[in-house]
Amino acid sequence: MSKKQNEQPHAPDGVLRVLPLGGLGEVGKNMMIMEYISDSTHDSIIIDTGIMFPENDMLGIDYIIPDFNYIMDRLDTIRGVIITHGHEDHTGAIHHVMEHVNAPVYATRLTRGLLEVKLKSAGLLDQVTLVTAQAGDTIQMGPFIVEFFHVCHSIPDSVGLGITTPVGLVVHSGDYKFDHTPVDGWPPDFAKLAEFASRGVLALFADSTNADVPGWTRSESGIDPAFDEIFRDAPGRIIVATFASLISRVQQVANAARRHNRKMIVQGFSMVENVKMARNLGYLDIPDEMLIDVSEAGHYAPNQIVVMTTGTQGEPMAGLGRLSTGQHRNLEVEPGDTVLMSSHPIPGNEEMVYRTINKLFQRGANVIYDPVASVHVSGHAAQEEMKLLINLVRPRFFVPVHGELRHLHQHAKIASELGIPRENIRVVENGTILELTPDSLTTGERVPGGYVYVDGSVVGDVGPAVLREREALGRDGFVIANLNVDRDSRQLVGQPEIISRGFVFLRDSQDLINKAQKAIADGLGQNGHTSVRSIRQDVERRLEKYFYTETKRRPMVFVFVNEL
Amino acid sequence: MSKKQNEQPHAPDGVLRVLPLGGLGEVGKNMMIMEYISDSTHDSIIIDTGIMFPENDMLGIDYIIPDFNYIMDRLDTIRGVIITHGHEDHTGAIHHVMEHVNAPVYATRLTRGLLEVKLKSAGLLDQVTLVTAQAGDTIQMGPFIVEFFHVCHSIPDSVGLGITTPVGLVVHSGDYKFDHTPVDGWPPDFAKLAEFASRGVLALFADSTNADVPGWTRSESGIDPAFDEIFRDAPGRIIVATFASLISRVQQVANAARRHNRKMIVQGFSMVENVKMARNLGYLDIPDEMLIDVSEAGHYAPNQIVVMTTGTQGEPMAGLGRLSTGQHRNLEVEPGDTVLMSSHPIPGNEEMVYRTINKLFQRGANVIYDPVASVHVSGHAAQEEMKLLINLVRPRFFVPVHGELRHLHQHAKIASELGIPRENIRVVENGTILELTPDSLTTGERVPGGYVYVDGSVVGDVGPAVLREREALGRDGFVIANLNVDRDSRQLVGQPEIISRGFVFLRDSQDLINKAQKAIADGLGQNGHTSVRSIRQDVERRLEKYFYTETKRRPMVFVFVNEL
Repeated sequence: MSKKQNEQPHAPDGVLRVLPLGGLGEVGKNMMIMEYISDSTHDSIIIDTGIMFPENDMLGIDYIIPDFNYIMDRLDTIRGVIITHGHEDHTGAIHHVMEHVNAPVYATRLTRGLLEVKLKSAGLLDQVTLVTAQAGDTIQMGPFIVEFFHVCHSIPDSVGLGITTPVGLVVHSGDYKFDHTPVDGWPPDFAKLAEFASRGVLALFADSTNADVPGWTRSESGIDPAFDEIFRDAPGRIIVATFASLISRVQQVANAARRHNRKMIVQGFSMVENVKMARNLGYLDIPDEMLIDVSEAGHYAPNQIVVMTTGTQGEPMAGLGRLSTGQHRNLEVEPGDTVLMSSHPIPGNEEMVYRTINKLFQRGANVIYDPVASVHVSGHAAQEEMKLLINLVRPRFFVPVHGELRHLHQHAKIASELGIPRENIRVVENGTILELTPDSLTTGERVPGGYVYVDGSVVGDVGPAVLREREALGRDGFVIANLNVDRDSRQLVGQPEIISRGFVFLRDSQDLINKAQKAIADGLGQNGHTSVRSIRQDVERRLEKYFYTETKRRPMVFVFVNEL
Repeated sequence: MSKKQNEQPHAPDGVLRVLPLGGLGEVGKNMMIMEYISDSTHDSIIIDTGIMFPENDMLGIDYIIPDFNYIMDRLDTIRGVIITHGHEDHTGAIHHVMEHVNAPVYATRLTRGLLEVKLKSAGLLDQVTLVTAQAGDTIQMGPFIVEFFHVCHSIPDSVGLGITTPVGLVVHSGDYKFDHTPVDGWPPDFAKLAEFASRGVLALFADSTNADVPGWTRSESGIDPAFDEIFRDAPGRIIVATFASLISRVQQVANAARRHNRKMIVQGFSMVENVKMARNLGYLDIPDEMLIDVSEAGHYAPNQIVVMTTGTQGEPMAGLGRLSTGQHRNLEVEPGDTVLMSSHPIPGNEEMVYRTINKLFQRGANVIYDPVASVHVSGHAAQEEMKLLINLVRPRFFVPVHGELRHLHQHAKIASELGIPRENIRVVENGTILELTPDSLTTGERVPGGYVYVDGSVVGDVGPAVLREREALGRDGFVIANLNVDRDSRQLVGQPEIISRGFVFLRDSQDLINKAQKAIADGLGQNGHTSVRSIRQDVERRLEKYFYTETKRRPMVFVFVNEL
């Protein structure tokens, strides 16, 4: 396996393999592997290393990482790891990946700053080579010539990729929207996309997140008027909650605060860290004198203050969650406060988000959220932008990525309506390898492309079986009976001890327990059990049946039998 | 306590108390109690008896009913139970309430039909007096003169109430929208509302469900064009999923099927039952020859068939859920099928809904859902309709109900913008009594107004403590150790037996278990325990600490100590 593959052969003997990986249903969002394999060479790059947050029925799971076993026996082929932007679903698994991979990590300045924080806390910062790649840079990684181009997204310094491979030019959109008036004043690089088209694009891999949303996604600047109205009219403090990684939104809040003469208090560990880092790197323009510490709040009238915090997804431990339950260390929500939720609930979080909003109202705050006012816009392209991207790039083959199957199908439909032949569009799931040659796109083999649960400090020791147990325990709880039996007579000695959790409130259910104890005694009396094991099984069966008959629930039942 | 209170005294000596009850955060949606109490009289009516479905973190709970303990020592004051329409969140607890209440139940024909089904399956049909009350009827219930007026909602035969009480006229909107072109051709009774206004309305209680939605809710007829396009273009079968209680939607599907020459197959127990009942009562117009059994499907081309089923909320056991996983008894989704989701996800269900949609795409179906096409409209008024209602009725006092606190606050804001003085608007939570006299609205005492969990066959034996246990078990599982110790020496006899569920996959974690066993042995060896109890506590503490250190998780730990 040689790394030398610089000369672009006219008829490459190899094939380009693209493997989307990722947590849950979102295809290729958290990670993508691109390999070029010829008779004599084998080289690959990794695009993004993100995590996903668990769904509601994945009990106890902290987060999910892509199952990247595929690269484990290809580690020596990896020429580079590219991170397209600084969001968790693209960066969060960097330490899990870089534990194994020995190749440089390429990222723009802000993204690199965010990666450094992660690698540092994992103790890996010294071992990883980080390379800054700005939009406009071209970097060669083995046979891949990677051009970084600027895209607009809800975090600055996001990039898409134009990757010249031996089989042709492949464009990867990254997470993008076409925002003509972004907060950082840096519009998308339309010229670069057109230039790619002029060179001829073999395949486009494009973000499908909002493929079921008609029209255009509003510009980030579109929310400034709503901010202005709120900042002007709010009678007291304003508390703005958003994602810590939404650096552009923090800038917009700072801009509104400046226009309306409010001081800014930043709260929450990740928000404080990100603001510090982004200011240091020049991605956030907030004058020193505008930022105050929460301890200085008393020096100002409530209507001269804006608090920036996290917790828009209803997380009970984040800033807004604590404020809603009166558990915040430094602050308390008071009547007269205005809370501004600058985010949308991620599907699955709605209940928790609305619960938080209701609790804030209960404390006397006025809570403003979309659709009450236009205080949030998505960072992803909607249908008309997707059409623009496809028509700008004019790819021969089209692969929708970054979305659930339903989004990919909508995106495929859009591409087809724009004239890309159906057979040149491919919707695949994570773990399905796509193979590209200069004139073909084929679906290759399927490899494990699922996800790995991270729970507590351990990766991967919780699998579907344990999750099923958790689900059963969470639904009906368990009952344990501890029995002493006489070694010879097999008769019960004393009363069985019965404990349960999550089943019924035992103190109110003495009758149920008494009857269960009787059922045990009856069962033992009747049968001529020869072994502890057969007693155990028999009693377990009897108790399961008894509890179901009485309560129509199925707690897990365990029996210990001790021979005396 | 006399029931005679017919003469409307000019200056009533009594007070009208209104108590909103309900499951979860939705105020007064599932149940409202209205009492008139004077020196010599005490009479009350109940409006609606509904259930709520549990939120994601209420593990194992089947449904929730309002805590109606308040009426239990006032049972002899109840003059009537009024059900405004046939949806579960207004009817579902009828059997729980009518187990205790001895008063007639008033409902319109369709609502009555749906109530009868419920009462029958609870074995209460013979004991309950059901009275049909059509829109336009006026019925006296003790001192309350109740006028039923027609409103539009997503089920036919819905009513609002004008209740003339000794203190004045109180209007209750029921669940409503102002639909000029409803499917049943019966627009809202604007004249009645205006007539109420001419008489002078003391207080308006109004539906707040969509108070954060600007504009008007689209008419039910507004989805017909989308249906027509889909029914015309779908190459194969169409499978429409909606709520079984959305009778109007079933009619719209039937109308589209008629226009496009498709036969209709109805699937799912509740859908079949409701369609049968609504056809019998004349609320559904589907000709016999249009309905076919699933066994006859083979006689028709796929594009001559539409299947009507349930499961729009991602419920795995409902029709669409089973189709998405290939577990349906009669049908299988095939490439070429078009699935139409005529509903919106109820907050909290999004994940399950999208999972179902993705699985249907995986099976080759084309799935159409809002926002991909306009195939659903809400049954509740949006902001402009709320304004119309308030301006039509012109109440002196305004109480937003049917919504979470966030909705009530938005609705209150709307009323205030229309000129109702802030002090005449009252936002309260379930369990807060409101007191009305001819010229005052005051907030009275707070009574238990929460909810009661129904789990399995038992009402109310699962409380917050059991739910917390379920949550802990669902998150980290449990570990049990069973130890034998020598009665005299207090030394361990044999190896402790350790079992766990929901914690880690034990077979892969032998090392963890071995070390735990060693920790137990060490602990026992070190300390001079005098009692079984102190051994138990000590070992539990050691194991909890050990597992947390090793895994950063906190499984519940239980220890049995048996003296040999």
